[in-house]
Amino acid sequence: MMHSSRLELNGGHYDILESPPSPVEFSQICHISRPVLIKGYKIPNLQRWSNKYLADTMGDRLLSVAVTPNGYADAVTLSSDGKRYFVEPYYEKMTMRSLLSKLAPSTSNVEDVCYLQSQNGNLFPGSYFTSGDMESDCELINLRDDVPAEIPWCSEALGRSPDAVNLWIGNNRSVTSIHSDPYENIYHVARGCKTFLLVPPTEGWCLKERMFPHATYQRATENSPLLLKPSPSTTPAVRWSSIQHPERPGSLSEMTHPLIIDVNAGETLYLPAGWWHHVRQTGLSIALNWWYDIEPRGSAWVWLRLLRGVAIVAADEEVEE
Amino acid sequence: MMHSSRLELNGGHYDILESPPSPVEFSQICHISRPVLIKGYKIPNLQRWSNKYLADTMGDRLLSVAVTPNGYADAVTLSSDGKRYFVEPYYEKMTMRSLLSKLAPSTSNVEDVCYLQSQNGNLFPGSYFTSGDMESDCELINLRDDVPAEIPWCSEALGRSPDAVNLWIGNNRSVTSIHSDPYENIYHVARGCKTFLLVPPTEGWCLKERMFPHATYQRATENSPLLLKPSPSTTPAVRWSSIQHPERPGSLSEMTHPLIIDVNAGETLYLPAGWWHHVRQTGLSIALNWWYDIEPRGSAWVWLRLLRGVAIVAADEEVEE
Repeated sequence: MMHSSRLELNGGHYDILESPPSPVEFSQICHISRPVLIKGYKIPNLQRWSNKYLADTMGDRLLSVAVTPNGYADAVTLSSDGKRYFVEPYYEKMTMRSLLSKLAPSTSNVEDVCYLQSQNGNLFPGSYFTSGDMESDCELINLRDDVPAEIPWCSEALGRSPDAVNLWIGNNRSVTSIHSDPYENIYHVARGCKTFLLVPPTEGWCLKERMFPHATYQRATENSPLLLKPSPSTTPAVRWSSIQHPERPGSLSEMTHPLIIDVNAGETLYLPAGWWHHVRQTGLSIALNWWYDIEPRGSAWVWLRLLRGVAIVAADEEVEE
Repeated sequence: MMHSSRLELNGGHYDILESPPSPVEFSQICHISRPVLIKGYKIPNLQRWSNKYLADTMGDRLLSVAVTPNGYADAVTLSSDGKRYFVEPYYEKMTMRSLLSKLAPSTSNVEDVCYLQSQNGNLFPGSYFTSGDMESDCELINLRDDVPAEIPWCSEALGRSPDAVNLWIGNNRSVTSIHSDPYENIYHVARGCKTFLLVPPTEGWCLKERMFPHATYQRATENSPLLLKPSPSTTPAVRWSSIQHPERPGSLSEMTHPLIIDVNAGETLYLPAGWWHHVRQTGLSIALNWWYDIEPRGSAWVWLRLLRGVAIVAADEEVEE
């Protein structure tokens, strides 16, 4: 089934599957390398993921939660010194119960923004698959029984296991700035809604990547406010898109053809390797993702490497604003 | 299993499979889009393809055979007027018996060169698959019972039937000039040996495509010698590589990394869409090929279109020799 959205021409539609693909069908989908919304892939145990269940199951275990004053973790931010930095969040340890209470709708907008987004395989790290280390430590190990370590139709299609499986918990105050990953990504929403703004790898040069000095949010003492602290000049600069709000009209070049896809609870997005994505969320949002390494040889690999190079050339040719 | 050849770096090896891939494995192979030699795909009825069997089975049916004075059909050729043309062969109707006798080793080198290379689905045309026209006329219909219409692991992997299935019969005097096709190609050698010189789509710009005026070989009367006849100026010029002998040392740029693969009787080559190929043959060579349409959307399609465009740009920037 084909779903029209904004543009009919190349880039203006995405496919919706009413049931999960077979391994061969998913291999064809990866070869096409365009986003697909998959509606019928169910993960039964997620039905029981109430706030109470999550808090009780995780108990006293501490999670590393990204905290920012504005909801932008890993994003380019204008500092009070007038410069723009690529800023990493402050990481704070807290229980699941504490995280969920901080994400409740009643929370004041002036409080710091929390987002569980540790991205290091917080459910199943790479070592789980490579060394068979079933007891490998990860912060969310108590929830593993509810989550499949692998997506069967994806693992069989790609001929490999995931590189990392992550849980994401946040609310509408958190935004993921536009970036791309060199991974095939299966993204499943368990609760709430995630809105992806997607730009194909061929249009990465429109996103105006620049080199930004590195900074982090820090606190002087445990309870003092977050401050943007530039890192030492020995910390390498970070290559990142200089477009901070691609969702706002006029911020993207007219040569860009973004797709906007809402992924609702129970739905799964195939986000192909190299596609740029900016992610917003509605309500309390709980999601899972499986990252799979791309095939490191052949046509698609050469293609993605070339396109990353094109983006650098385009950046070099423009003067930093 | 990985087979090293000439270069270890990108482009210097090809995989050899000892048995046919599963559909999922072949889908992965198509995604990588590098040539693979498949050793274990057997077509049982080809065992009985002696010259006598072929001649008897085809009987009086006439075949369209390409005839040239030099073995180069569909190739750039220097004419006696000092110009280079893209020359199409003369097509002569003959029986299989007559073709095989003309291809026998005793044939004099001064005779014209015959090559059955009609490429229009001479075993199974596209209409066989699209309209279910099982009786669709094709010159080699008598041999259909011996040849599978589809390669099961390929059709399932690509989710489609072939676009054309062809029989090729020639000898060492025929050479196929370097070109690329926008099809996935399964090439099976039934007798003799075919030697493929393969250049990846990324290096097409090294092949110096140019526009050549069109010509054909013709005879003034049925028995008079073949003459190169320029076509009327209204016939569009043909874009073709200006490198006539890529197999000769020094003819390809040092930036080109050709693969050379011998495909012996009983072996099958996966020749990915867009790969440039120059083909020679040893002895009497009988081969079959299945052309499958490429996926006309997504990454690989954009990539091949881009690379064809790059070749045009490269051609425009060089002065015609």
